[in-house]
Amino acid sequence: MPRIALGIEYDGTEFFGWQTLTHGSSVQAAVTNAVSLVADQRLEIVCAGRTDSGVHAIEQVAHFDTQVVRSARAWTLGASAHLPSSVAVIWAREVAPDFHARYCALTRRYRYTILNRAVRPGLEARFVAWERKPLAVEPMRAAAAALLGEQDFSAFRTIACQARSPHRRIDALSIERLGERIVIEIEGNAFLHHMVRNIVGSLIPIGRGERPVSWLAQLLEGRDRRRAGPTASASGLLFVGPRYPLAWGLPASVCAGPDTPARPPLAPRKSDPRP
Amino acid sequence: MPRIALGIEYDGTEFFGWQTLTHGSSVQAAVTNAVSLVADQRLEIVCAGRTDSGVHAIEQVAHFDTQVVRSARAWTLGASAHLPSSVAVIWAREVAPDFHARYCALTRRYRYTILNRAVRPGLEARFVAWERKPLAVEPMRAAAAALLGEQDFSAFRTIACQARSPHRRIDALSIERLGERIVIEIEGNAFLHHMVRNIVGSLIPIGRGERPVSWLAQLLEGRDRRRAGPTASASGLLFVGPRYPLAWGLPASVCAGPDTPARPPLAPRKSDPRP
Repeated sequence: MPRIALGIEYDGTEFFGWQTLTHGSSVQAAVTNAVSLVADQRLEIVCAGRTDSGVHAIEQVAHFDTQVVRSARAWTLGASAHLPSSVAVIWAREVAPDFHARYCALTRRYRYTILNRAVRPGLEARFVAWERKPLAVEPMRAAAAALLGEQDFSAFRTIACQARSPHRRIDALSIERLGERIVIEIEGNAFLHHMVRNIVGSLIPIGRGERPVSWLAQLLEGRDRRRAGPTASASGLLFVGPRYPLAWGLPASVCAGPDTPARPPLAPRKSDPRP
Repeated sequence: MPRIALGIEYDGTEFFGWQTLTHGSSVQAAVTNAVSLVADQRLEIVCAGRTDSGVHAIEQVAHFDTQVVRSARAWTLGASAHLPSSVAVIWAREVAPDFHARYCALTRRYRYTILNRAVRPGLEARFVAWERKPLAVEPMRAAAAALLGEQDFSAFRTIACQARSPHRRIDALSIERLGERIVIEIEGNAFLHHMVRNIVGSLIPIGRGERPVSWLAQLLEGRDRRRAGPTASASGLLFVGPRYPLAWGLPASVCAGPDTPARPPLAPRKSDPRP
């Protein structure tokens, strides 16, 4: 049965996250409903990285199977026509039947934006977190270096995380100040539930000078979530998107470049719902 | 009576514009309510540039008079505490009693962002306009050059505009492509009602190749609103802010630089509600 991959962008502010739940609207339910209307049959979709309530995406990737034949244009424009204004399908492409939006992803990228000023955000309230105390970027960078590589991230994993293994690999982490904003970009093979927000929540006390640079490495080594900083707010988090091997023929924006580690992705595990 | 100037940022999506009306929530009403609560007395505020429904501001400037003594911090944080999450007071400063947010402004800057791609926006739906046909920036730039200087802008003035004179001065206009976005920045002494959106609405057919470069100059000369393009959507428009002479002692972000024309601002006219 043909498999279709989609690129999806969304403002997650008014959703209870990607995954369909019983108690609120989800991006998954909105997209499933939209593509099902285009196909005139009930479809099931799987995404690359489930985002939490209030988290946004520049380029979420998802896939579904259908025997209904539609052009890429029909999937894209048709689905967008049935979606709320805060969600759009930005591309659609038929892929090989063994492509899997989640298991084929080599890496995932996230961006976290902190508005660092005395006054809370107004214009960009949906897209930034707020920290009123001045943050020093250099100690945050020095501390974050300890996160690189394959490690046990139990210290930054929410208690609700259902992943079998706490091991993940972080390939790149950058922290830049752009005027009043601090932008943290992080790329790795996969992330535990709340991992990015918990890492940011522990980088902030270091940036404020309340904790030493060595604190982050200590937390990581201690593997104890209770000793780390609080979970940073969802509004600052943006799922930039996954990257796949070039061979799948996806748009360049979600393909691994020459700098992307060629290591194999995590093996599919049915019991591991949040990689 | 002491006069206080405020810098205000807002996401205008859910407001019926700056000005208080009978039929919906306005930014002015929200800010008036907030500062009045801080002062514990009813205040009246005047802004630099009234924005329409759905239009945003990075740095709107407003002023009010009060005999109540509060620190700049109290006005800023106190007012923000009483505002919805989409509005924030970003600074407050006592100014000379003859400062006037509207009449003292030398120039006003606006930014218009068009998402130029086949698919409508999702993530940024609140902050961009959408044009599905590819736009060529070069002819738009060549056409826009005709707008510079002091001219009669009747062709780009909504019928509802109450300004006495259709003459305004445009000092700078830039059009840049940044990936899928086209960003138009325009600075002038003042703008007629809908003037920026009407100019953008006439630049778009030129960018699409449906109208020649010379069309904009012809429209301007014809002074007939009915011949110009449609009013571009409010969501793409952002009031960057006004600029004042350095002597008022305002934050640098709203001060005229060496490049800002030193010409005097429009004279105050009570009967001219939308400069």
